[in-house]
Amino acid sequence: MQIAIVLFDRFTALDAVGPYEILSRIPDAETVFVAERTGPVRNDTGTLALVADKTLDEVTRPDVVIVPGGPGQTPQMENERLLDWLRAVDATTTWTTSVCTGSLLLAAAGLIKDRRATSHWLALPYLKRFDVEPTGERVVFDGKYVTAAGVSSGIDMALALTGRIAGDRTAQSLQLLTEYDPQPPYDAGSPQKAPADLVEEYRATTRHPQA
Amino acid sequence: MQIAIVLFDRFTALDAVGPYEILSRIPDAETVFVAERTGPVRNDTGTLALVADKTLDEVTRPDVVIVPGGPGQTPQMENERLLDWLRAVDATTTWTTSVCTGSLLLAAAGLIKDRRATSHWLALPYLKRFDVEPTGERVVFDGKYVTAAGVSSGIDMALALTGRIAGDRTAQSLQLLTEYDPQPPYDAGSPQKAPADLVEEYRATTRHPQA
Repeated sequence: MQIAIVLFDRFTALDAVGPYEILSRIPDAETVFVAERTGPVRNDTGTLALVADKTLDEVTRPDVVIVPGGPGQTPQMENERLLDWLRAVDATTTWTTSVCTGSLLLAAAGLIKDRRATSHWLALPYLKRFDVEPTGERVVFDGKYVTAAGVSSGIDMALALTGRIAGDRTAQSLQLLTEYDPQPPYDAGSPQKAPADLVEEYRATTRHPQA
Repeated sequence: MQIAIVLFDRFTALDAVGPYEILSRIPDAETVFVAERTGPVRNDTGTLALVADKTLDEVTRPDVVIVPGGPGQTPQMENERLLDWLRAVDATTTWTTSVCTGSLLLAAAGLIKDRRATSHWLALPYLKRFDVEPTGERVVFDGKYVTAAGVSSGIDMALALTGRIAGDRTAQSLQLLTEYDPQPPYDAGSPQKAPADLVEEYRATTRHPQA
């Protein structure tokens, strides 16, 4: 089983590395980071680069695709080379997935039209422009399309997906191995739970690319 | 405030990227990935490389140090160059921290002797060999030393540390921005919660480097 994780300039690192850390440990998984060019790809803050080991052209039939998000997703919405690749590989994937605003790329590629999906909470409304139904859920399965909410939610998505791919016991093993027993010291991880004025501040100051 | 995240061959990616994604977003934080040599450093499965932008020699007075773990921690236990660097920078850090088996490197450097600390659940007993008191907690603060349990626990550590560094509101902001509202689909994230036979299987098959 080949898992391809897409990188592009100014992606959000945890969007990619969260699900990677789980899914790459499924027995028989072969995981590959892909981008338009091989070599280092810088993240949204510019302080971390992950290495793409293969070009998009070199990876033509992955079983699983993971598309992260991040501020760099905006220019990719018009990158026909990436969108074409997503459409091409989606024809034979078992699972096509995204984390955070990566779902807007799946939407722009026309892959999740008329389906239910999620995204970063600040980006959720923009799914509608692509005839995608936004949900407030953290992980959404709709057919073979799996979308996760913001950044850290890719870990939850990956465990759920591991269960579908390799069974509950493997998923539990990987949860135990990565000691994923979350104990956040605050309870502010969603717009429903965070202080209201903080949510409003973000809503007021975030000029979303698709707005 | 400079935050240095240490990389070495066969580190575990999420150990580093989890806390990175939170701490690097603290206003005025300057985050840098450091290693003995600059350039790509491969993780434990060999399928992901993160780029070290500075050598250890180039980063002499970080305010915060983060040491990840992973199978590659074992040979580092005898890498005097790294241990010397840890001792040298620790003299002026505000916070010296680790995730997963990274705490064994802090222990080997003699930095947490007679202190309480945590580590990956499979590695906990080995802290005692360095006169460190292992605890079952997910995140342990002892003076300026902060240790986190296995892999994913670095996210919780980073949020707690953000609270100490920049206040509760900044920590809540970053939790909201990274949408850290964990909803694991299984409840197997600790040896207390996972199926007992799975825990035993790991205990029986993991030959820990320090054993």
